[in-house]
Amino acid sequence: MTEKIDGYEQDTTKFIQNAQVNGKTQDIFIDAKGLIQAIGPDIRKEFRGQAECIIDASGMVAIPGLVNTHTHAAMSLLRGYADDMHLQEWLSEKIWPLEAHLTGEDVYWGTKLACIEMIRSGTTAFNDMYFFMNDAARAVDEAGIRATFCHGFIDFDSPEKREAEMAATKDLVHHIKSLNNPRLKAAVGPHAPYTVSREGLEWCAEFSKTEDVMLHIHLSETESEVAGCMEKHHMRPAALLETCGCLSERTLAAHCCWLDDEECRLLGSRGVSVAHNPSSNMKLAVNRALPYGALKEAGVNITLGTDGCSSNNNLDMLEEMKFAALLQKFFWNSDTLLPAEEALAMATTNGAKAMGIPTGAIQIGRPADIVFIDAKHPTMIPMHNGVSNIVYSCTGGAVDTVICDGRILMADKCIPGEYEILEKAQEVATDLVARANTPK
Amino acid sequence: MTEKIDGYEQDTTKFIQNAQVNGKTQDIFIDAKGLIQAIGPDIRKEFRGQAECIIDASGMVAIPGLVNTHTHAAMSLLRGYADDMHLQEWLSEKIWPLEAHLTGEDVYWGTKLACIEMIRSGTTAFNDMYFFMNDAARAVDEAGIRATFCHGFIDFDSPEKREAEMAATKDLVHHIKSLNNPRLKAAVGPHAPYTVSREGLEWCAEFSKTEDVMLHIHLSETESEVAGCMEKHHMRPAALLETCGCLSERTLAAHCCWLDDEECRLLGSRGVSVAHNPSSNMKLAVNRALPYGALKEAGVNITLGTDGCSSNNNLDMLEEMKFAALLQKFFWNSDTLLPAEEALAMATTNGAKAMGIPTGAIQIGRPADIVFIDAKHPTMIPMHNGVSNIVYSCTGGAVDTVICDGRILMADKCIPGEYEILEKAQEVATDLVARANTPK
Repeated sequence: MTEKIDGYEQDTTKFIQNAQVNGKTQDIFIDAKGLIQAIGPDIRKEFRGQAECIIDASGMVAIPGLVNTHTHAAMSLLRGYADDMHLQEWLSEKIWPLEAHLTGEDVYWGTKLACIEMIRSGTTAFNDMYFFMNDAARAVDEAGIRATFCHGFIDFDSPEKREAEMAATKDLVHHIKSLNNPRLKAAVGPHAPYTVSREGLEWCAEFSKTEDVMLHIHLSETESEVAGCMEKHHMRPAALLETCGCLSERTLAAHCCWLDDEECRLLGSRGVSVAHNPSSNMKLAVNRALPYGALKEAGVNITLGTDGCSSNNNLDMLEEMKFAALLQKFFWNSDTLLPAEEALAMATTNGAKAMGIPTGAIQIGRPADIVFIDAKHPTMIPMHNGVSNIVYSCTGGAVDTVICDGRILMADKCIPGEYEILEKAQEVATDLVARANTPK
Repeated sequence: MTEKIDGYEQDTTKFIQNAQVNGKTQDIFIDAKGLIQAIGPDIRKEFRGQAECIIDASGMVAIPGLVNTHTHAAMSLLRGYADDMHLQEWLSEKIWPLEAHLTGEDVYWGTKLACIEMIRSGTTAFNDMYFFMNDAARAVDEAGIRATFCHGFIDFDSPEKREAEMAATKDLVHHIKSLNNPRLKAAVGPHAPYTVSREGLEWCAEFSKTEDVMLHIHLSETESEVAGCMEKHHMRPAALLETCGCLSERTLAAHCCWLDDEECRLLGSRGVSVAHNPSSNMKLAVNRALPYGALKEAGVNITLGTDGCSSNNNLDMLEEMKFAALLQKFFWNSDTLLPAEEALAMATTNGAKAMGIPTGAIQIGRPADIVFIDAKHPTMIPMHNGVSNIVYSCTGGAVDTVICDGRILMADKCIPGEYEILEKAQEVATDLVARANTPK
């Protein structure tokens, strides 16, 4: 049975006409496997006739599907549950007690909610770290977007905990690989240098190498983490990761606010990717912004992530690009740092490179992960500079149509089944809070 | 002839049912003059029968229409025209040369575009400073929202320029008053302490008092302004304004990044309102954030503005609330500073107070300036805390319906005549750039 969205059939050849691609009006032909087979202003004669599905993208700006390289998707359930608190109280009194009651079913529905929000704001791939990730994978498979999943590995120097985390990590990686779904990938997720033992970090590094999967880690988000690492290990966090074998071209390090110049050069020399998480860093008052200039100079692949909804509180990568470009200018006192083109690259090309997925650009031979932004949205007018409008002016509200892997996930702002998912997610979140606040 | 929007008649009594107001499901009755006559969970029997128009707001969160207290609306035409440049080059090579070619017709269409964007993102009142303000007033009258207009008064110590600016200011104030339109107000607009002579500032203060209109000024946006003022006047900018009589409860000072504690106390003691412009301050790398804590302690009325589209680049007050709450936490290194409730108050109650308009709260006797946010937008789910979702999660894209002065300006995301305005604004902006770049 062929699925349909708003009259368009899935898994068919598609001809997209009159889209604005790189500032020019062009057509795009997508083959039945979801790959971009042709792009240009003059491909209509050759391809329009053979397409099973025609999409009119007049008045739309096409950009690559956005790539969110650091989030905890199911934390969508905690959106607005606790804000404006001191970091430690927020974690110990609010977030952790609630998370202790999380079930796989909660994570499934939280991830479904997150996927709806991501599709609606133009994200087609994300890098996730959380718990019950088999359930998260089920949700992403159904949503039709891409994700890489890791189990948040935390052992706090306990050998028993470490064994359990190793087992959970192995199970997840083997499970995701067994699905054999090109949209779903596995990763190893040592939570952070301050929550994982040296032995744990070493095992994660080795397992990531053996299985050839990403290593996703939090790095130097706060100043106190760095101080703690110096005290315990007599070296800075990035140096510790280096001695544990954790730094390679498979590594994605999130936050990275407190890296010094030498650490930036180390990450560059090892081919590490970093994720900037500006909104979260500002909200949690981490007191330093990612050293964009030093990382760029060191040749580090710099990407963008929203972090989870309890510290942002949304997953809107269009808004996050603006936060990144503005925070960098403000914190480093440079009105020319991180221009719009670089912010867009962080959220597309660089993100796809970090995740090792073939998306991130609208090019022949790549999967069709394409987002259409309504050029008639007031935030996109006038069109002196499309990239500037995308980065500095529009938000997720201007996204009209989203294609991932050649399949149409949202057309004319409509996502089939959206309301049922939102209702169920609200129900699950309410129930979770009730369970957490019921005396045992 | 009765106008209609999406089936709803204007200038009629309206009964809004099942809206979420202050966390409770309530109905609202609006009389034919556009005033809120009743609110409550139990007013249906008394008022529903007599309403000429019924609006179902089930699944909607109602907030007061947002108040943008510092912008240059017609600069929407310059959106994306120049970014990522050094401030002085940006102004002298790009912005000023373009502005030199502006006509009243340009300002009219730029303001029309700005109003569309504001309505779409929930703003029903704004405080504007620019040129050709008679034309701006025409645009706002047609759009149906509220604004206060001032002519940007700049004399650079030239007596001739001062005479001309005084005449322009008088003309504008008299013109706006002659319109006798409760939605349109006039103000006096000395641009800034560094662009207006002492004589100019004194005249503005006196004229604002005589005419009983607001005094709208830029204050201490950059460090160099403060240094320049110290050098020229041997006092800090707020002290200079005090000696010129410019500080009163009619005064709105924008930016205020570089105020010291004594200046904060001075502003508080004079009843001055300030506008925080976080996005603009970040983008232009002004290197300090408005001292929110000190201003709050001094009892200053703190409001929120987007600034113009060439330095933001949008007019989305929902996004701006997030920027304000996050920038304050980050810059002042306090994760509890400027909580969500205060950010919402800045954008509503405090803004209305600064502009001297009776809106800013959904209360009996006030004009119905009400914005309905779609509670089924994914950024609003789950609803653990509506105010948190509004400030930290949703953007303008979640606004569904907008009422100003009892008239429905947008219903179900539809604004009548929007596309014609957007097309014309694009045309006008393109033409402006062409004129500016044509050798004479």
